[in-house]
Amino acid sequence: MNIPANSPTLRSWIEVPANSDFPIQNIPFGVGSVDGIESTAYTRIGDQAIDLFKLYEMGLIPSYADEDGTEYVGSLNVLLLGGREPIRALRQRLSELLRTGQDMKVIQQIKKALVPVSELTMDLPVDIGDYTDFYSSRQHAYNVGCMFRDPANALLPNWLHMPVGYHGRASSIVVSGTPIRRPMGQFKPNPEAAPEFGPTRQLDLELEVGFITYEGKPLGERISTAEAEEHIFGLVLFNDWSARDIQAWEYVPLGPFLGKNFGSSMSAWVVTLDALEPFRVASPKQEPEVLPYLKGAPNMHFDIALEVGLKPSGGAESIICRSNFKHLYWSMAQQLAHHTVNGCNVFAGDLMASGTISGDTPDSYGSLLELAWKGTKPVKLSDGSERKFIQDGDTIVIRGHCERDGVRIGFGEVSGEILPAN
Amino acid sequence: MNIPANSPTLRSWIEVPANSDFPIQNIPFGVGSVDGIESTAYTRIGDQAIDLFKLYEMGLIPSYADEDGTEYVGSLNVLLLGGREPIRALRQRLSELLRTGQDMKVIQQIKKALVPVSELTMDLPVDIGDYTDFYSSRQHAYNVGCMFRDPANALLPNWLHMPVGYHGRASSIVVSGTPIRRPMGQFKPNPEAAPEFGPTRQLDLELEVGFITYEGKPLGERISTAEAEEHIFGLVLFNDWSARDIQAWEYVPLGPFLGKNFGSSMSAWVVTLDALEPFRVASPKQEPEVLPYLKGAPNMHFDIALEVGLKPSGGAESIICRSNFKHLYWSMAQQLAHHTVNGCNVFAGDLMASGTISGDTPDSYGSLLELAWKGTKPVKLSDGSERKFIQDGDTIVIRGHCERDGVRIGFGEVSGEILPAN
Repeated sequence: MNIPANSPTLRSWIEVPANSDFPIQNIPFGVGSVDGIESTAYTRIGDQAIDLFKLYEMGLIPSYADEDGTEYVGSLNVLLLGGREPIRALRQRLSELLRTGQDMKVIQQIKKALVPVSELTMDLPVDIGDYTDFYSSRQHAYNVGCMFRDPANALLPNWLHMPVGYHGRASSIVVSGTPIRRPMGQFKPNPEAAPEFGPTRQLDLELEVGFITYEGKPLGERISTAEAEEHIFGLVLFNDWSARDIQAWEYVPLGPFLGKNFGSSMSAWVVTLDALEPFRVASPKQEPEVLPYLKGAPNMHFDIALEVGLKPSGGAESIICRSNFKHLYWSMAQQLAHHTVNGCNVFAGDLMASGTISGDTPDSYGSLLELAWKGTKPVKLSDGSERKFIQDGDTIVIRGHCERDGVRIGFGEVSGEILPAN
Repeated sequence: MNIPANSPTLRSWIEVPANSDFPIQNIPFGVGSVDGIESTAYTRIGDQAIDLFKLYEMGLIPSYADEDGTEYVGSLNVLLLGGREPIRALRQRLSELLRTGQDMKVIQQIKKALVPVSELTMDLPVDIGDYTDFYSSRQHAYNVGCMFRDPANALLPNWLHMPVGYHGRASSIVVSGTPIRRPMGQFKPNPEAAPEFGPTRQLDLELEVGFITYEGKPLGERISTAEAEEHIFGLVLFNDWSARDIQAWEYVPLGPFLGKNFGSSMSAWVVTLDALEPFRVASPKQEPEVLPYLKGAPNMHFDIALEVGLKPSGGAESIICRSNFKHLYWSMAQQLAHHTVNGCNVFAGDLMASGTISGDTPDSYGSLLELAWKGTKPVKLSDGSERKFIQDGDTIVIRGHCERDGVRIGFGEVSGEILPAN
């Protein structure tokens, strides 16, 4: 029974369909409810979700909070307060409970805590206190610089010296599957005329991956790159919907605001950093050399294949982008070290997203702005139609997974359909 | 007993010192604790705080939430969920309980709920979900434009068309009296050389007023300027501490980040919009005409005198700025309407701050950056020393009050001492 939770040889007594993102090596965390009853924490194997509060009530897993299992009711925030070690212990315990060879009586017990994921209504896994969005893909920053400035000066002077980021709106982050309404706003299509008001004409997606934090340090203290991963609970897929025309008119000098905060979508299952450990890869060489507080281990990146699908209303889905989380220039550890270097505090359940993840080939760009190159190269869909930006009724689906030694660890998806403006 | 809570003729049976900000017409709300016991909601008359949970337990005020008084324990967020009407009713009830002519037996009861404010440790009044900072003083935007661009093009093209704003960090907002540590960070004093790392050399204050919201509308719906004030609970003084050198190097293109999020300070007592009603004044004429969604009533501004004091370690305080909340170009109603026009949702307990409030005379500028005009005109203090920016050990105090018909309604203060970097 002492096999670690990420061993490739493990199998679960719960059926795992081929190509499932959720084998026993994953053991992600989510929050959901059945028939509108109070939400509880779940993990997932294949297409079965396992109610952690029920496992606690059965005496199969301990309570890490105040010994009445409150950390398994509602959002995961209380569960995260203890930091990485209790979550490691919990995942190991869940792995042992759910792997083949388990006692039949225990299996019969656990079966009472199983819910098919199709019957579960997922909530956001955490109450997000603060949400920060970075801008950490060099290719994305370069592409935007080429389009709006010029290729010779595409990267702004600060970009190679720090993981540039900004604060986003936490209230409008929704869980995968929630429709998003096309936002109204101000924009200025004619530079010589007055601004106009109406539904955005340039609705875009942004392919991102976010990480959810454990408790950080008190206000006034900083987290080093060496300490950073101890404060990272897990990762989610993230779509940072953007209204490019609203953003372009508003963002100087204080940054994006209404062009972003009408809604962001997050996947429902948090994949822990521990589950992703086998997929750690080398970080890119950084030139010019970064300041000492941003230096870190040479392998702080993760190989996570990402794709974006666009499905027109009633039509078939087309894959419009294939990218990878490893394409980032700045690692999560660098992002968190930078964020706290001035003493900024971080709470359990905060979210930090990567920024659009674009690879170095045109089919790996993580936004329609880049894929259709500012409208000059419309993206062709399988039904013959084209897109410069997102149309009403389109559903955007982002998926992500890692694969190695026959083990596939994935995130499921984050999806959202665009409703017409009202 | 039917005299409205803001009648100038009312007096309290609790003593109110001359020039107190807290006569019976104010009835603000705060959260505090005595001797480390669980925090509860309080109101305040003169220098006495009144424990609202105790009043509830005595049967003197009703419970608006789930009838066990939970809205009076911990932050005010639950109390705010019901919106403006219950708070109006509660303030009217508190006014009746606390005014002269009250029954002696009731007075004897209430006296058991009194705590001298000097014995109360104040918390933040709300758990701030999201914090937005606007940039709504024309003179401030003009001054910054003059310093960093040129007087002919001081205002950016979008400024007169919308209340420009950006998202700030909620986690690092602290209550008045909390010391603030000088932040470390990256800056670039020599444009030709590489960036440097160290304690900020340009630590500044920003004189602001913030408003705390009631629950807004669901994601995807907007609040009109006509509806906006129904969603505003009350106002606080706010110091948006800023590290100008960090901010200057980081803020293009995504806005201020580490130059701001090391700490912001908020006054402890929330003064309701109802208490401020007698101080409503005409809004400035807006030219060019704003888009229809930003048009509103002609008197959406409030006359609140503001001042900033700087007290060196062990020294006497000098008043370095006298300004007024009415100097804003964009009203709170316009800010909230703009913030939600794209469907962005707002929760009870969110905070929206004005941005630095500068009047049109040099002694009314709301930051040291402007007062000392980028270091070229150091501010003279009463001890003979000068300031271009804030030094370690300096305490900054912001105060604000309204006065009319012999009634003075005020906010108390927001103060913070700067600790050396570590």
